Amino acid sequence: MAIGVGLLGLGTVGAGVAAILMGPEGRHPLVGELALQRIAVRDLERPRSLNLDPQLLTTSPEAVIDDPAVEIVVEVMGGLEPARSLILRAIAAGKPVVTANKAVIARYGEEIAAAAAERGVYVLIEAAVGGGIPIIEPLKQSLGGNRIQRVSGIINGTTNYILSRMADEGAAYGDVLADAQRLGYAEADPAADVEGHDAADKIAILAGLAYGGPVAREAIATEGIDRLQARDVAYAAQLGYVVKLLAVAQREGEAEPLPLDVRVHPTLLPKHHPLAGVHGVNNAILVEGDPVGRVMFYGPGAGAGPTASAVVADILNIAGIRKVTGSQAGAPLDPLLAASSWRRCELVDGSATSHRNYVRLQTRDEAGVIGRIGTCFGEAGVSIQSIVQFEARDAEAGGGAEIVVITHEVRESAFRSALAAIDALEEVRTVAACLRTL
Amino acid sequence: MAIGVGLLGLGTVGAGVAAILMGPEGRHPLVGELALQRIAVRDLERPRSLNLDPQLLTTSPEAVIDDPAVEIVVEVMGGLEPARSLILRAIAAGKPVVTANKAVIARYGEEIAAAAAERGVYVLIEAAVGGGIPIIEPLKQSLGGNRIQRVSGIINGTTNYILSRMADEGAAYGDVLADAQRLGYAEADPAADVEGHDAADKIAILAGLAYGGPVAREAIATEGIDRLQARDVAYAAQLGYVVKLLAVAQREGEAEPLPLDVRVHPTLLPKHHPLAGVHGVNNAILVEGDPVGRVMFYGPGAGAGPTASAVVADILNIAGIRKVTGSQAGAPLDPLLAASSWRRCELVDGSATSHRNYVRLQTRDEAGVIGRIGTCFGEAGVSIQSIVQFEARDAEAGGGAEIVVITHEVRESAFRSALAAIDALEEVRTVAACLRTL
Repeated sequence: MAIGVGLLGLGTVGAGVAAILMGPEGRHPLVGELALQRIAVRDLERPRSLNLDPQLLTTSPEAVIDDPAVEIVVEVMGGLEPARSLILRAIAAGKPVVTANKAVIARYGEEIAAAAAERGVYVLIEAAVGGGIPIIEPLKQSLGGNRIQRVSGIINGTTNYILSRMADEGAAYGDVLADAQRLGYAEADPAADVEGHDAADKIAILAGLAYGGPVAREAIATEGIDRLQARDVAYAAQLGYVVKLLAVAQREGEAEPLPLDVRVHPTLLPKHHPLAGVHGVNNAILVEGDPVGRVMFYGPGAGAGPTASAVVADILNIAGIRKVTGSQAGAPLDPLLAASSWRRCELVDGSATSHRNYVRLQTRDEAGVIGRIGTCFGEAGVSIQSIVQFEARDAEAGGGAEIVVITHEVRESAFRSALAAIDALEEVRTVAACLRTL
Repeated sequence: MAIGVGLLGLGTVGAGVAAILMGPEGRHPLVGELALQRIAVRDLERPRSLNLDPQLLTTSPEAVIDDPAVEIVVEVMGGLEPARSLILRAIAAGKPVVTANKAVIARYGEEIAAAAAERGVYVLIEAAVGGGIPIIEPLKQSLGGNRIQRVSGIINGTTNYILSRMADEGAAYGDVLADAQRLGYAEADPAADVEGHDAADKIAILAGLAYGGPVAREAIATEGIDRLQARDVAYAAQLGYVVKLLAVAQREGEAEPLPLDVRVHPTLLPKHHPLAGVHGVNNAILVEGDPVGRVMFYGPGAGAGPTASAVVADILNIAGIRKVTGSQAGAPLDPLLAASSWRRCELVDGSATSHRNYVRLQTRDEAGVIGRIGTCFGEAGVSIQSIVQFEARDAEAGGGAEIVVITHEVRESAFRSALAAIDALEEVRTVAACLRTL
């Protein structure tokens, strides 16, 4: 017997999902057992490329959820509200939910998970992170034997597209952004992408699954690429690095609650790092655990087809487990698929963490400057890997010298105090850029 | 209540699994619900690094399977027999099986799957391909909405280690192999790895899951790296390619049974291909499907820790679904996790397939040779991408010229007839090498 699916939203992703369900040939046979029962749209009259029975469409998302023929609710409308309320309504009705909505899950994941656990239904979110890349289910179902040490990833396609073009063309951020907007790779309002908020939503979700407990989304240190300068991308390349917007969730000990360092920022990666070769709108997530070592998941981070593939995977998982349990809500849940949290996590204070840094200084072009900078670092206990003076007599460099320092791994607090001392040096005009380095 | 696990084998992988089960802290809490009940070993007296209760050990694998406290049987002994018979015995006893045994699954997968389906138990095989990389479960559970076009991968760590060193050092195959044997990266008898049989086992398994029907293991065209010469690796690099041992399963149409081209051979990959950057003993599998596009799974392809991670993932999946169904064998199976086949597949005749080729010819060093070679290709309808004469006055090249041709995508039959005509040319001493190219 067919399993009824209701869609909330028929935008890019929703249409992609509908297209798969309407053309099951050559896909897993379970796809052929799914039947699109009802679709909530904003505008009934809008022309659509899909050949849909108009009777399926309604402007009422509540009507989709409440339709007795709808057994799985798929939320692909986006935004915080009414998406959150509709997800909760579906759960309350005992209907499993599939959502691609990273913003809702990152912010209201605990509330939604609690409601789902109480009602005994699944809420699956494969499409919320990494587009078509299977990453949520592998974290839940394939790595449970590991102690996860770090999850790091390129999980925003727009910024990776911009950074790839900045690196390839030596172009300025603003120019590439404008071009990306023209080509549809960036939104008219690009803030969520370029300021790192989208990546922060996603790393919050990944960290919650990898470490087994929710993390406070609003406490994630987030820096975007909107202030990144082309010269830093160029200097990084000369030093053997690629600049990527990295989202990282790293375990900082064994205590209870588990201390985690979770952050989003432009980062210098060594050219041979597995994430350094991820170009354009692709995404990749690297998971490091004991005893698995390093595994990486790579693929298209956005787009109708890839995201629809992930949404349908979730629908299939719900349909598959229904074969075991029947359709009754409230049956026992598979703890891996349900991914209930099992540990408390706590974000650590960033100043207590350690990492490598890239610093660009604009200085007077005179002898002894490098020595004095080195001394400041040394007095603060900051060990330096390299210090290089670049030829930079253009106006942007202020007509002086540009000095780039890459440190070894040092405590953030020590690094900041060294930087304050350097900034106070008479020969140093400004600390022009400061980036994390792997 | 604890779930009893029985191990068949306590070698590298078995010991890795035991170590995880004996140290559940910091892993998914379901690990803590697993209890090692019985372990079959060859030699009770052998010293072991694990602090195991000697009462757990037995030399009888049958005793492990038949032990009423053992609810999940983990086969990590390897080899075809008695592994196959023991897996079937466990199934007959209504006990789910986890195995890392690619040789058994590639050869007896149909028999085992039929027995498992009839008895209503799961047989999970994540560790059989790609070591610690989650690839079996994602194929089963995360890509079902797709029509898979191609699965290609570097799925043998030993050969990838050898090829990486040949490329980095310009070293000869035999020298690197000897070194790899000394370092433990290659077996004393390296045939299964270097002749491509191990990779063929694994691509048979991946193809069966990706396309939903078993493929005939013995019919897979298999060529190893044992006749690969250092000069071809070097010429490939000069032309912008990396040589990898690739296993490929590609759909060749839509007919029923589904026509598949499945093969293993050294292959030239363009330097920027996602698989080209996979170095050393790492593995990676690229899956191309509609609508997901290209997704890649990367990680350590072998080793105790990674493989144990995959085995434990399977144990956890069985334990997780038991929370839903209870422990009774014969309950309905989740069709995704059970991965029963749903379509017939058929391997196509290789001469009817099309691909790009790399050919190295040793010829007399005289004017007009390139023209005559080009004419032979042209008359057979084989379009050429590049034809390059290399300086090669060393003895191995016979004192003449070496000419490397890279073709466009051409039918194998046309290519072979062109090659026969070229081999018959008076100026051509020998067709010294012939490799596939992506």
